[in-house]
Amino acid sequence: MTINERIAAIRAKMKEQNLTAYLMPSSDPHQSEYVADYWKSREWVSGFTGSAGLVVILQKESALWTDSRYTLQGATQLEGSEMNLKVTGVAHAPEYIDWLKSELKHGDTIGLDGKLFSVGQVRNLAKSFYENGIDLKTDIDLVETVWTDRPTLPTEPIFAHAAKFAGLNRVEKLAKIRERMQASKVNNYLISTLDDIAWTFNLRGSDVASNPVFYAYAIIEKDVAHLFVKKTKIDADLFQKLKTDGVELHDYDSIEIFLKNLTDNILIDNASTSNQVYNSIEKGLIVKGKNIVQPLKAIKNKTEIRHIKNAMRKDGLALTKLFMWLEQTLETRSIPEVEVAEKLKGFRSEQEHYYGESFDAIVGYNGNGAIVHYRAEAATCANIEKNGILLLDSGGQYHDGTTDITRTIALGKPTAEQKRNYTSVLKGHIALDMAKFPHGTTGPQLDTLARMFLWQDCLNYGHGTGHGVGFFLNVHEPPQGFATNPTTSRGRTAIVPGMFTSNEPGFYKANEYGIRIENLVICREGEKNDFGQFYYLENLTLFPIDTTLIDKSRMNTKEIQWLNAYHQEVFEKLSPFLNEEETAWMKKKCEMI
Amino acid sequence: MTINERIAAIRAKMKEQNLTAYLMPSSDPHQSEYVADYWKSREWVSGFTGSAGLVVILQKESALWTDSRYTLQGATQLEGSEMNLKVTGVAHAPEYIDWLKSELKHGDTIGLDGKLFSVGQVRNLAKSFYENGIDLKTDIDLVETVWTDRPTLPTEPIFAHAAKFAGLNRVEKLAKIRERMQASKVNNYLISTLDDIAWTFNLRGSDVASNPVFYAYAIIEKDVAHLFVKKTKIDADLFQKLKTDGVELHDYDSIEIFLKNLTDNILIDNASTSNQVYNSIEKGLIVKGKNIVQPLKAIKNKTEIRHIKNAMRKDGLALTKLFMWLEQTLETRSIPEVEVAEKLKGFRSEQEHYYGESFDAIVGYNGNGAIVHYRAEAATCANIEKNGILLLDSGGQYHDGTTDITRTIALGKPTAEQKRNYTSVLKGHIALDMAKFPHGTTGPQLDTLARMFLWQDCLNYGHGTGHGVGFFLNVHEPPQGFATNPTTSRGRTAIVPGMFTSNEPGFYKANEYGIRIENLVICREGEKNDFGQFYYLENLTLFPIDTTLIDKSRMNTKEIQWLNAYHQEVFEKLSPFLNEEETAWMKKKCEMI
Repeated sequence: MTINERIAAIRAKMKEQNLTAYLMPSSDPHQSEYVADYWKSREWVSGFTGSAGLVVILQKESALWTDSRYTLQGATQLEGSEMNLKVTGVAHAPEYIDWLKSELKHGDTIGLDGKLFSVGQVRNLAKSFYENGIDLKTDIDLVETVWTDRPTLPTEPIFAHAAKFAGLNRVEKLAKIRERMQASKVNNYLISTLDDIAWTFNLRGSDVASNPVFYAYAIIEKDVAHLFVKKTKIDADLFQKLKTDGVELHDYDSIEIFLKNLTDNILIDNASTSNQVYNSIEKGLIVKGKNIVQPLKAIKNKTEIRHIKNAMRKDGLALTKLFMWLEQTLETRSIPEVEVAEKLKGFRSEQEHYYGESFDAIVGYNGNGAIVHYRAEAATCANIEKNGILLLDSGGQYHDGTTDITRTIALGKPTAEQKRNYTSVLKGHIALDMAKFPHGTTGPQLDTLARMFLWQDCLNYGHGTGHGVGFFLNVHEPPQGFATNPTTSRGRTAIVPGMFTSNEPGFYKANEYGIRIENLVICREGEKNDFGQFYYLENLTLFPIDTTLIDKSRMNTKEIQWLNAYHQEVFEKLSPFLNEEETAWMKKKCEMI
Repeated sequence: MTINERIAAIRAKMKEQNLTAYLMPSSDPHQSEYVADYWKSREWVSGFTGSAGLVVILQKESALWTDSRYTLQGATQLEGSEMNLKVTGVAHAPEYIDWLKSELKHGDTIGLDGKLFSVGQVRNLAKSFYENGIDLKTDIDLVETVWTDRPTLPTEPIFAHAAKFAGLNRVEKLAKIRERMQASKVNNYLISTLDDIAWTFNLRGSDVASNPVFYAYAIIEKDVAHLFVKKTKIDADLFQKLKTDGVELHDYDSIEIFLKNLTDNILIDNASTSNQVYNSIEKGLIVKGKNIVQPLKAIKNKTEIRHIKNAMRKDGLALTKLFMWLEQTLETRSIPEVEVAEKLKGFRSEQEHYYGESFDAIVGYNGNGAIVHYRAEAATCANIEKNGILLLDSGGQYHDGTTDITRTIALGKPTAEQKRNYTSVLKGHIALDMAKFPHGTTGPQLDTLARMFLWQDCLNYGHGTGHGVGFFLNVHEPPQGFATNPTTSRGRTAIVPGMFTSNEPGFYKANEYGIRIENLVICREGEKNDFGQFYYLENLTLFPIDTTLIDKSRMNTKEIQWLNAYHQEVFEKLSPFLNEEETAWMKKKCEMI
């Protein structure tokens, strides 16, 4: 089936059900950002593989709404189909709602699958369309019968994440959750989000590529914790351990019946609970509140931080081998972008406690580097030569931490313009890294520090400056981030000690080159005085930043000192683990400017 | 009556009505920030004169909630009474709600006067307390009978603001409003906010000190505009002109009956309509929407901007005379702070089209400068001597514009610490002034630019960096501002061309000194390219910035260039209007550094 045929098939079903519009989001029933293949219906209907996007199908028109990270990729992937690309002006804003209001009229009906939208989203949609007399049907799954070659649901085993890495065992974590439940006076607490469940139970899985999570629901009670999973994923040994720890297993599909029979009160987070699961609560008293696990998980504990530092060192060592190999190989031949990603995976996999990559590495040579979430494909990818600019964004999943690092290197002699823009990005990276800020400061306030030098040249980048990062969990972890939009939940979250976040300003010139410099930073407690409790960011990533792309005349003394100190730290921490040749290479990369 | 007696009188009334708590805000029925004396019941009950604050009275306790601008003033003014001072952690956040929740129990009742709270506020309160089983009574005016020596309602005449200043006459303004009403498909539009009414009708009044507004409501219909005012405030001539322009006069008190009889639809802004007025609509169809006038008024037109530049020159000339007088007088005697404010008012009043001061001038010598909204009183104010630091924040109301300017000057030899902090404030001021930023950028994103240098020293200031400014209207004008809190309406408002805002970072060391440097800036359209439509800020204020307080070693080349260029502009624009002695003085103040 071509894309247009798939859209036509959905339209035929829409007609049967008298729907004027049908909404297809990127999500699964757990409001995941990245989902198992089984749930990729939005990708199936549009051909667009980006992580963020929503398809709207009308009888005469169809459109994909995504954000500006995906402007280039969206345009390329929608080419040849009838679907229009709509890029939201403000990241993560549901701008398709206003568009639909202008396209639809009084009496029209919009359909959606209530499994794939949160209660909060459905309420917002209902409220938005109610005023215009547009009806909303929330139990419409049109994909089920139309998508004939749909992948199956994942069946990979679930495994334990050792408490020696996590810092707390699952009994301790459950106790912390119950403490907060008690403070909120609730006897039951529903967790829908996969990373929150994995964190709570110190369990991991392989249901979603690069994200070590598994499909599940959980309900925490005072004395027992109910875990709803495909039971064949858990072996007898783990089953026994869970039982000992007060965890009772249920079948994944039984969550709705369980909730239907519940008569006690239950805490629900509107933002992460699917509308369908929410609606299955009939007798129970729903207490709407904040996700309890998310803020616990976001503050990394001392054990986690100690392990993250190890993981960072391993990442630095793998990248050392990769970039040395790259330089040496380019002396004799060009290298396809995909080969770099494969090779890097190989080097990472040699490291202790390696589990996999934390996302598909982005290897963007010249113009491909300008596609923010580019993924090289063997058949179409570029060959890297000894000129231009290479952007490499990658990360690893280790049992002792999740990493995410981007470096941009010049392979030939960079132009003055490239050096100017690289230097602006670096100055922004340094400004954010060096920031001190009072308690209560949010991401949008700090994001500006990374962006201000580009702004002065009337330049910008179309993504946030940083996202939260999990611990052997999702590389994108809410709630915090450095981002421009103050109206999102991310934008309203204050940055506090223990939060682990990326610092990744960039610059992208379409069809020419992309620049991004990314380290991971942890928020630390600083000075407390009459003016407040101040915090600062400690950088944890260890790999040299290319200095050949720097226009030193634009760097001030403090910035130069920062860079030289950083390179000294990188060299000191990595060199004990390098051989003689590697040490010499590293010494050169870490030379003072 | 002492403060404690007033509180006791309210408590007695609370008992009669079975109220556990009573809320007393700073507002009037129009959600004004500054109100007529008649409405200052919160000040009456607490003795606190600041513009922002809410009093909560319980049977055994009473508290005033205000923000950190008023920490020092609040503590001083509450001394000797039973009332506790509570400073909100986040500016403008209703943190008293959580406190009340912890103090009250299921079955308790909170009372408030629905005239003094907006619909939106009441709904938020009701929602917050509903969950805890706390009742809310919104028609309780306990002040009426208790406040025996209450001032009368104002009776000052209303006068026309010439269209040659406003750029548009009232017929043109009404047409613009009706255009937007049509787009929203409404036939009636209620305006409650005094500055929006004054702007719409090109009328001004003297009901509120320093704010040239008058108490009124307005309802705009397709063919007629209804203005509800005390009719004796309008003379026959103006009455006739208004009639010709399609404006029908009604008595101020008749608004509720008018709304009660309305059967058509009516657009209401939840944030600015009082709960009581809202509740008087019985048959009419309420359409909730955004205030239409506010965004029209916020974008200053070309005529207004041209006039503002004149007003700024006049302000600069008045300040020149003031500071010269100050320096000369200090040679022979000390000067009470109040005398400076009086003298400045005198110099401003010599200027063309002067109407009054835009707020009570803040003349803060040494420790008094650290009280952000300090107001010197003749009996208690400090005597300015030839040492220390003087902060002077003042503004004028001219028919051709509203001004607001702060300068901080050293009267003796400043300390190294004072110079360091002054320089940080100045660097922040310059960084914001020089900013370029893309469409969609909000105040919290830009606020950081003014604050970042202080943050690096773990210092901060407890107020926003900037507020919107009216045109011969309120010196604090929503919706925009440069402020830290992204969750307020101000924080969510993007800065766009034509918006007129203050740039006023500061630093305050309790009991020692205060620093603030304030200019007014207008947002302008800049470059448009692949990365967006960029904007920048144009400074309009004209008066030298004290250079003796600068630590030049901490200024970079661009900052020094900015300062020298600014002083050159100030000298060029003011000197044609100065006499020989003044010119010499100004030349010295504008010397290059």
